[in-house]
Amino acid sequence: MSSSALATDLYQLTMIAGYDTAGVDATATFELFVRSLPPNRTFLVAAGLEQALDYLTDLHFTPGDIEWLRSLPTFKTVPAKFFDQTLRDLRFTGDVWAMPEGTPFFENEPILRITAPLIQAQLVETTLLAIINFQTLVASKAARVVLAADGRSVMEFGTRRAHGPDAALHAARAAYIVGCSATSNVEAGRRFGIPLAGTMAHAWVTSFPDEVEAFRAYAEVFGDRSVFLIDTYDTVAAARKVVQSGLRPYAVRIDSGDLIALSHSVRATLDAGGLLDTRILASGDMDEWSIAELLSRRAPIDAFGVGTAISTSRDAPALGGVYKLVEIERDGIDIPVMKLSGGKATSPGRKQVWRRVVDGRAIGDVIGLEDEQAPPDGRPLLVPVMRGGAVVASAESLDTIRQRHHALVHELPVPVLMLRARETYHVGRTYKLDTLTDYTGQQLRDS
Amino acid sequence: MSSSALATDLYQLTMIAGYDTAGVDATATFELFVRSLPPNRTFLVAAGLEQALDYLTDLHFTPGDIEWLRSLPTFKTVPAKFFDQTLRDLRFTGDVWAMPEGTPFFENEPILRITAPLIQAQLVETTLLAIINFQTLVASKAARVVLAADGRSVMEFGTRRAHGPDAALHAARAAYIVGCSATSNVEAGRRFGIPLAGTMAHAWVTSFPDEVEAFRAYAEVFGDRSVFLIDTYDTVAAARKVVQSGLRPYAVRIDSGDLIALSHSVRATLDAGGLLDTRILASGDMDEWSIAELLSRRAPIDAFGVGTAISTSRDAPALGGVYKLVEIERDGIDIPVMKLSGGKATSPGRKQVWRRVVDGRAIGDVIGLEDEQAPPDGRPLLVPVMRGGAVVASAESLDTIRQRHHALVHELPVPVLMLRARETYHVGRTYKLDTLTDYTGQQLRDS
Repeated sequence: MSSSALATDLYQLTMIAGYDTAGVDATATFELFVRSLPPNRTFLVAAGLEQALDYLTDLHFTPGDIEWLRSLPTFKTVPAKFFDQTLRDLRFTGDVWAMPEGTPFFENEPILRITAPLIQAQLVETTLLAIINFQTLVASKAARVVLAADGRSVMEFGTRRAHGPDAALHAARAAYIVGCSATSNVEAGRRFGIPLAGTMAHAWVTSFPDEVEAFRAYAEVFGDRSVFLIDTYDTVAAARKVVQSGLRPYAVRIDSGDLIALSHSVRATLDAGGLLDTRILASGDMDEWSIAELLSRRAPIDAFGVGTAISTSRDAPALGGVYKLVEIERDGIDIPVMKLSGGKATSPGRKQVWRRVVDGRAIGDVIGLEDEQAPPDGRPLLVPVMRGGAVVASAESLDTIRQRHHALVHELPVPVLMLRARETYHVGRTYKLDTLTDYTGQQLRDS
Repeated sequence: MSSSALATDLYQLTMIAGYDTAGVDATATFELFVRSLPPNRTFLVAAGLEQALDYLTDLHFTPGDIEWLRSLPTFKTVPAKFFDQTLRDLRFTGDVWAMPEGTPFFENEPILRITAPLIQAQLVETTLLAIINFQTLVASKAARVVLAADGRSVMEFGTRRAHGPDAALHAARAAYIVGCSATSNVEAGRRFGIPLAGTMAHAWVTSFPDEVEAFRAYAEVFGDRSVFLIDTYDTVAAARKVVQSGLRPYAVRIDSGDLIALSHSVRATLDAGGLLDTRILASGDMDEWSIAELLSRRAPIDAFGVGTAISTSRDAPALGGVYKLVEIERDGIDIPVMKLSGGKATSPGRKQVWRRVVDGRAIGDVIGLEDEQAPPDGRPLLVPVMRGGAVVASAESLDTIRQRHHALVHELPVPVLMLRARETYHVGRTYKLDTLTDYTGQQLRDS
C-alpha cells in the first residue's frame, strides 16, 4: 500500500502547475539530508527507502484526483493542459541514488539523491520526507536502545502510543532493522515478517477473580510459552504464587514499581522455587537510559519491552530532513544551485559520500561531488537504486538490512556509539565541493 | 479506510484466544482515559472518535488474516474453534459512550467507555488507543498554538515532519477541529474538506536564474492569490524587488532570520510601495511560544505557518492514554474491578464526567458513577455514540466539531487557557466513586 499522489503539500502542486505553465521542465537534481543531529543523537540510521521507492513506482493521479484538484479555487487560473495532460500522464521516470537502509550517517550527508524532470522531482518532496524522516527517526532511536541493552533482547511494544496505526506499523519495521528482536504489532508480523512477541495485559489478570486462576487459564492454552504479568497487585507475592502453582512459564513480566529491587526479589523467588529457566521481562516507560541504569545496577532482567521511547522517538520526536535543489539544467547545461537563507544555506552540485575505513574501523566520512575520485580508503555510501523510474535491485529482506546495519554500526568508533558521545565523528568536505560552494554563493551575492 | 483487525498488539489476540478457550466471554466495560496531563499542557482536547468508530464498525478478520494467524507458532496449541468460529464471526456489537470530538478534558476523566463481550472489548484496545491518543495529542497541542495566535490565522504545515503520510493526514484533521484555518496537506483537503493553503518553496525561487523572474512566473499562473517566499537570498531586498516589479501578491512569506526585525522592515517596504494589502506570513519552526513572543514584540505578522510543533506535538510527543477494565460480569452480576499496581492504580465502575457550568463559565468537573445523579449545574460529557455495534448519531462535520470546540474551550476559566496555567482546573470525584474505590481496593488486598 503506497501513498496517494495527493499525500503532499499544496505548494508542490501549485509549483508544478507553475512550472508546467511556464514551460519549465528541465532536469533537476534534489538531495535529501539532515542539517544537524537531533539532541541526544550521535549518529542516524537511514530507513524507509523501500516505502519511498514503492511510492515513486506507483506515483500517479487518478481521474478522480484530477477532477477534484481542478475544482479547487486555487487552480482556477491554471490552463487545462496541466490537468488533461501533465497530471494525467505523470509517472516518476527519474534516477535515484540512496544509502541502503540500515546505514549509519551524519549531518549534511545526502542519503537520497533524485535526478528527474523538475515537475516530478518537485512533486515528490513532501511524501518522500514524511516517509524517510519518520522511519529514520525511529531507527536512529531504536539503535541506541539496542546498544544500551548490550545483547539482551529489546522488543518493540509502542503501537498504542505511535502516531496512529500506520506509524505503529512502520515504527515496528524501523526498530527491527536496527536490531530489535520482535514487535507486538501483529500487522507488522504479517506485512514484514517481523517476529512477534506478546504477553498478557492487566485486564487479563483483573478479569479473573484470582491471580493464580488467571495464570492457570493462560497456561492451559499457551503452556510453556506463557509469559505472566505479575505486577497487577503485589509483584513478589505473585512470583511466590507462580512458584506454588506448579506452573512453569517461559517468563514473567514486571511493568511497574522499583524494577531493581523487584527483579532481584523475583529472581530469588523463582530460583528458590526451581524456576531457574523462567526469564524476567521488564517493561513500562523504558528507554536507553533506564535500560543502561538497570543493567549498571545488575538488575537480573533478560529482556526489555520498549514502547513510547521507540515508536515516537520521544526525546527527539522529529527529524529535520530536508530536500533541496542542488542542480538544474539551463540551456542544456547543468547548473549547480544553492540558497543562502540565514542559517539554512545549502551546498550546490550532485554529491557522493565516502566512508573512510582503515583496518575495519571507520575513521571519518567525506562529502564531495559525485564525479570526484574516491578518497583513499573511501567506500561510496550512495548507490543507484532506481534508473528511469524502475527499481534497479530486487527488494532486500529485512534480515539482510538488519545484518548490514549491525556490521556498519559496529564499524563506527566505539566512543561515537556511546549514549553520550565521547567523540564527534569526523565529516569532511572535499576541496572541490568547498570551491564550488564559494563560487556559486559569490555569483548569487553579485547578481 | 479503517485499520486492519491485525493492527493490534499480539497479546490482545493471545488473550482473546485464552478467553475463548476458557469459555469466558462475560460482558465487560473498559474506559479510556489519561492519567496525567503531559508537560506544558493545561487541558487536553478529545479527537479521533470518528476514525475510532469507523474502525469498530468495520472490524473483522479476513480469511487470509485467520489462516496466517493459525500458522504462527504462538497459536499452535489454540483450539480450532477460535479460528473457525470466533475469529471468523467476530464483529463489534457493543455500546460506546464518548466525549464528542473537540471537548476539552482533564486527567483521569474517561473520554470513551466501551461495554461489550470481553473478547471484543479486549481486542480493540490497541487500535483505539493508537487512533485516539494521536489525534488527541495533536488537537491538544494545536489548541495552544491557536490560542497563542490570538485571532490570527494558523496554518498547519507539518506533513513532512509528521510520523509518516497517514499521521500527517490525521494531524491535519485534529489541527483543524481546534481552530487552525487551513492545512497544506492536499489529501486532508480531499478526504476531510479542510481548506488548503500553500505558497512556494525555496526550490521554486532557486530554479529560476533570478528571484523576480521566479515571482513573475508564479504570478502569471496564480495572479493575486500568489504568496511569494522572500527569504531565499536577502529578505528585505526581495521585498523591495517585489515592490519594484509591480506585482501585487496576496502575501509574502518569511521562513528564516530575525522575524521581528524582518517583518517590520518588510511591512515598511511594502507599505511605502503601496502594497498595503499584502499580508505577511511567518513560518519556520514556529510554536505557541515563538508566536506569543513575536506578537508581544508587535511583529506585524498576519498569519503563521506551523509545522513540526503541531504535527508531532514536539514538546510532548506521546499521550499516555490508557484503556482499563472497570467492570466485568460474574455469575450474572456486574462486578467493579480495578488494579493496584504501584503508581498505576485505577478506579472501578462505569463512570460519567460532569462539567459544572455557572453563568457560562466552567467551574470544575466531577467524575462519578454513571448511575449517580448529576451534580448541581453539571452537564454530562460522555454521550452514547454506538449501541449494539451501530453508530447512534450521524457523522458530524468538522465545522460542527470546530464550533463546539471553540465554545467549550472559551467556557474554561481564562487562567487555565494560558500557555503556563495560572490556575489548575478542579476535577473532583463523587463520594460514591471514592467509596466504591476504597471498598474494591480493600477486598483485593484482603483476598
